[in-house]
Amino acid sequence: MPKKDLENDESTLDRLTRLGKKLRNQLEDSEEDDLTIDTQVRSKTNVEYDEEEGRLSLGDSYSTRKFLNISHARKFMQTTLVANKTKELVENGRTASIREVYYQLKHSVPGLDENTFEDQDESNNVVVDIETATGAIREDLHLFAEPKGRLFGPITINDSGDSIDCMAMGTSGLAIPSIVDHYEFEEHSADFILVVETSAMVNRLVEEDFHKEHNVILIGTGGQPARGARRLINIMHNRLDLPVYVFTDGDPWGYYIYSVLKSGSMSLAFQSDRLATPDAKLIGMTMEDIDAYDLHHVTEDLKGKPEDSGGPTKDFKRIRDVMDYEWMQKDEWQNQFQKMLDKGVRVEQQALASQSLQFVANEYLPKKIEQDQFLD
Amino acid sequence: MPKKDLENDESTLDRLTRLGKKLRNQLEDSEEDDLTIDTQVRSKTNVEYDEEEGRLSLGDSYSTRKFLNISHARKFMQTTLVANKTKELVENGRTASIREVYYQLKHSVPGLDENTFEDQDESNNVVVDIETATGAIREDLHLFAEPKGRLFGPITINDSGDSIDCMAMGTSGLAIPSIVDHYEFEEHSADFILVVETSAMVNRLVEEDFHKEHNVILIGTGGQPARGARRLINIMHNRLDLPVYVFTDGDPWGYYIYSVLKSGSMSLAFQSDRLATPDAKLIGMTMEDIDAYDLHHVTEDLKGKPEDSGGPTKDFKRIRDVMDYEWMQKDEWQNQFQKMLDKGVRVEQQALASQSLQFVANEYLPKKIEQDQFLD
Repeated sequence: MPKKDLENDESTLDRLTRLGKKLRNQLEDSEEDDLTIDTQVRSKTNVEYDEEEGRLSLGDSYSTRKFLNISHARKFMQTTLVANKTKELVENGRTASIREVYYQLKHSVPGLDENTFEDQDESNNVVVDIETATGAIREDLHLFAEPKGRLFGPITINDSGDSIDCMAMGTSGLAIPSIVDHYEFEEHSADFILVVETSAMVNRLVEEDFHKEHNVILIGTGGQPARGARRLINIMHNRLDLPVYVFTDGDPWGYYIYSVLKSGSMSLAFQSDRLATPDAKLIGMTMEDIDAYDLHHVTEDLKGKPEDSGGPTKDFKRIRDVMDYEWMQKDEWQNQFQKMLDKGVRVEQQALASQSLQFVANEYLPKKIEQDQFLD
Repeated sequence: MPKKDLENDESTLDRLTRLGKKLRNQLEDSEEDDLTIDTQVRSKTNVEYDEEEGRLSLGDSYSTRKFLNISHARKFMQTTLVANKTKELVENGRTASIREVYYQLKHSVPGLDENTFEDQDESNNVVVDIETATGAIREDLHLFAEPKGRLFGPITINDSGDSIDCMAMGTSGLAIPSIVDHYEFEEHSADFILVVETSAMVNRLVEEDFHKEHNVILIGTGGQPARGARRLINIMHNRLDLPVYVFTDGDPWGYYIYSVLKSGSMSLAFQSDRLATPDAKLIGMTMEDIDAYDLHHVTEDLKGKPEDSGGPTKDFKRIRDVMDYEWMQKDEWQNQFQKMLDKGVRVEQQALASQSLQFVANEYLPKKIEQDQFLD
């Protein structure tokens, strides 16, 4: 069942071919005294927040791998091996895991007492090098990662020729794969996309028929979203022009999930335009919900030590980290974190069950949407 | 979308009611000088391997919680609260997460400066108490756990009124929920069930159309299988009378996954009859595969220290642990572990990619099945 996304595949082949040609030209040009690949520096120092676009991106620092430098020769060989293998995958309409690529390429180098790769970390790093050298991301290179997440709602998705009615998936849902670029959205009657942090809350909303009664595409990420889910939210938002609301726990971990969905992550900053959705808004939980819905007896105390008594550690440290990020400087976000610190508590999605199991679906979410109560 | 499994629900209500009546009778009977609930001891010392049934079970040790014992009074209150709440769930055809139950029941006790529950560990333990006191498992009590796993293949499953053709799920698959007892298998043309440890191998087999060409129900567990996947394999095997083959990495972690699917786990020994599938067989990876398919250059060295040089640690320790289990004493299993130790290596499913990406689907698995090469 080879995946076809011909336009994108051609662009990827073009990028890989350009990389190869550049190397060949360097080899043939006697003026050149070295053989190099330029890759963007991906460390924290080169990550920037683009306020206009509302997402993270990489800055202008490049590092150059030199073939004739003995310490880079091995990595250079690996880079060309992996680039060649991914070209083969794209040409043949196949996908592979990074682990399979590693095993396909692991062999001893003829004439040398050396293996092409010693362990998988080596090939993993090389894949990221190729991503930043060519501008093609992992999914473009037909390499898949661990899938995670489920989807329910009023949309029919064509996946590799199969037409899947996501409204008729019972309590199970569609498993979101790690590559979703080939998805075709055949028809839908959705009003918005609701991204939900915990599996338990997805179960609750499905059990209450929230996706049916409010025309919602429900995406459960099962904690920190995998690449496939992040890419899916991005392409659904862009292709279908649907608002994206994110529903997490009211704690620094949940708000960080929101920030990754909205602005991207530092480690994948070079892919934010594909993986992030700057228009996403947070629907809850907020610190104000504790008063508004009388949740005082079902908050959880922050774990760890605050700053003024030997900390910050654990939750306190995490709050401090996240509230220091450049893209979390808006007043409304700083307020949330400050209230969290002042009250010394966090509040989970499931705490809404203290009102009733149905409360989240029948009152909490509809009211927030109706009254346009979002954090942005 | 309330789930209905009326026969099972009635049996569960009956079990919960019996527990309640027993308590009421004790209260009303003036001869009784205490109020008690008996629960099976679930610690390792009371776990037995039933060779005849081929699975773990709990022994005859019971512990008694006394209401009039001050140290048990709190737990007793919690047990009756949770039992009552699960009865309400079953009666109303609803399900809930353990976390929701915790939040629903967390409140201050009138007249006392005390909460019903202080943290979620308390309610989690109580749920297991009720399971062993009534013989009804978590899923019977309408409590769900974290879902994990995907399914593809020639079977139509009715989930809560939705008829899902699992052969038409593209590269995505059906997400396996945490409760599957309500699944109805409408029709199928499967010859066997293949349970696969890694998501990457599931992707590979789907991409090669293995499920279509060999009439296979493919179940990906994504590592150690969740309760929902274990229960699904159990009911599919029993209701559809299909053989179950398990495909894991050739290492102690993979073989332990197999042993949990086949015989159950120590922590859930009281549920082995519902969660384990003693007829399951291991199709690979085996230590013999390394010679048979020339995988010497793609094995991985065992991590840690062997016994004779300061160990065992890491992989070496894990091998020793698993090979000591009572249910792993068959010669063929001891041989596998001994070979692992002798060669000092493990071999992953993805190592088969060194032959070709298609090799696992076109040669490795079909040959094993044709020649009946399984470990049992």
